[in-house]
Amino acid sequence: MTDPTYARIKASFERQNLMQTFGATLTSVGNGAVEITAPIGENVKQQQGFAHAGLTFALGDTAAGYAALSVMPLDNEVVTAELKINLLAPGIGAHLIARGRVLKPGRRLVVVASDVFAIHAGTETHIAALQGTMVPVPKSP
Amino acid sequence: MTDPTYARIKASFERQNLMQTFGATLTSVGNGAVEITAPIGENVKQQQGFAHAGLTFALGDTAAGYAALSVMPLDNEVVTAELKINLLAPGIGAHLIARGRVLKPGRRLVVVASDVFAIHAGTETHIAALQGTMVPVPKSP
Amino acid sequence: MTDPTYARIKASFERQNLMQTFGATLTSVGNGAVEITAPIGENVKQQQGFAHAGLTFALGDTAAGYAALSVMPLDNEVVTAELKINLLAPGIGAHLIARGRVLKPGRRLVVVASDVFAIHAGTETHIAALQGTMVPVPKSP
Amino acid sequence: MTDPTYARIKASFERQNLMQTFGATLTSVGNGAVEITAPIGENVKQQQGFAHAGLTFALGDTAAGYAALSVMPLDNEVVTAELKINLLAPGIGAHLIARGRVLKPGRRLVVVASDVFAIHAGTETHIAALQGTMVPVPKSP
Repeated sequence: MTDPTYARIKASFERQNLMQTFGATLTSVGNGAVEITAPIGENVKQQQGFAHAGLTFALGDTAAGYAALSVMPLDNEVVTAELKINLLAPGIGAHLIARGRVLKPGRRLVVVASDVFAIHAGTETHIAALQGTMVPVPKSP
Repeated sequence: MTDPTYARIKASFERQNLMQTFGATLTSVGNGAVEITAPIGENVKQQQGFAHAGLTFALGDTAAGYAALSVMPLDNEVVTAELKINLLAPGIGAHLIARGRVLKPGRRLVVVASDVFAIHAGTETHIAALQGTMVPVPKSP
Repeated sequence: MTDPTYARIKASFERQNLMQTFGATLTSVGNGAVEITAPIGENVKQQQGFAHAGLTFALGDTAAGYAALSVMPLDNEVVTAELKINLLAPGIGAHLIARGRVLKPGRRLVVVASDVFAIHAGTETHIAALQGTMVPVPKSP
Repeated sequence: MTDPTYARIKASFERQNLMQTFGATLTSVGNGAVEITAPIGENVKQQQGFAHAGLTFALGDTAAGYAALSVMPLDNEVVTAELKINLLAPGIGAHLIARGRVLKPGRRLVVVASDVFAIHAGTETHIAALQGTMVPVPKSP
């Protein structure tokens, strides 16, 4: 891929060990919109056998963060300042898809949202809505 | 241990596979207050080498959820309805400690808070503040 | 109007003294979607002369609450359990429009969102995004 | 009063017309902690006769904002970037007291919390907990 936005998001994503632990993949990168997919493996379940809210949050957060990064100058990284999640339904199924998007770009703050869906037998269920703030930080050398 | 609150929280915690994936341990259970500790292992880092916000959230969420469960009748489990996190400092150090507490108990909703600290060279740094809502659900058989 | 949903929301809205203090009007009621409009009068400004975040929140909250009520059985009222607001731009202009909607209906919890716009010289600017939880309560006699 | 922090917060507070509409007064200013008091007048009630969440939010927001301002350089104003409120109990009584405090100061972001209490027959009831982010902006001339 020669798209510089895709290339830098992919490179950053691959340095996120937690995403590797979750078996997550970067499935789409657009301008202000990023999608991440991960299996609901045995290792990420909570006590009732559903996807743990920590997994749902981590995927929604990461998708929203890269959505913000996709509209920032190339010499930035991004960190989460704050993020709120409402859980809408249990995370039941084979995998989760998180779709992050930019609500409002800005030089100092980027307001983002993210929706997470569980895929079960070919059907998408909306399981979480996230809304928060990302801030640019200088890229690590 | 014969304390029934500790016993049921411990039993529930041990069924949370994500907590095992994170190497987390339940380090304290009080009435309306629960503490969870986990190492900042290589497998939970983000792209800059700090603890991923997903780990911080998962520990804070789980500690807050069990704090809520500790004040509920014994035939309930608890699920997160919503939770908001403000990240205060990077998660740098050997491990994280999450301390959850009940702000307001209730029959239908329990309002909770959680604080997460990074332990580095013997010093605790407050890295995240969480506030949210837990709801009781019937215990799985 | 003979639509029972509109009639009960209108009746409830008219009992909200704060909405009268703000000169707010109920401008649209749909199934799971409610719109409220209010002037940015001198009495609701903050120290820089813009609409106070308290006004923006109150309108967004009320629109979201009635959006939730519109999908509930007729013998309920609704109260806000929690609500989060991200402010996107200053509230500059002649009036504000808040549009509330239901993200996820439920018997015990209704997850809602609301967007608030400032109208200045005929142009709508998105100034706030809210996300939260409404809960049904028995109607006062 | 000759304390420069108190003087500038008082001057800013008096330019907040919404606070005048609510009859609110600045009752305490400390270093990173501010208290605001307002009556639960007829003009700020919701449909059940309690304090409207919009009033509770506005007071909590304003107290938190000035708590942030109290730790900023003198040539700044402050605006709310985001704020989340959990409502714990109905706002019943003669007046409300909002107590804002700084959780984490910073040059670009100040993380704040605020608690709101209803005073009824001499008893304080904790009715709301708020957590959010304030950002410094240059002072208007």
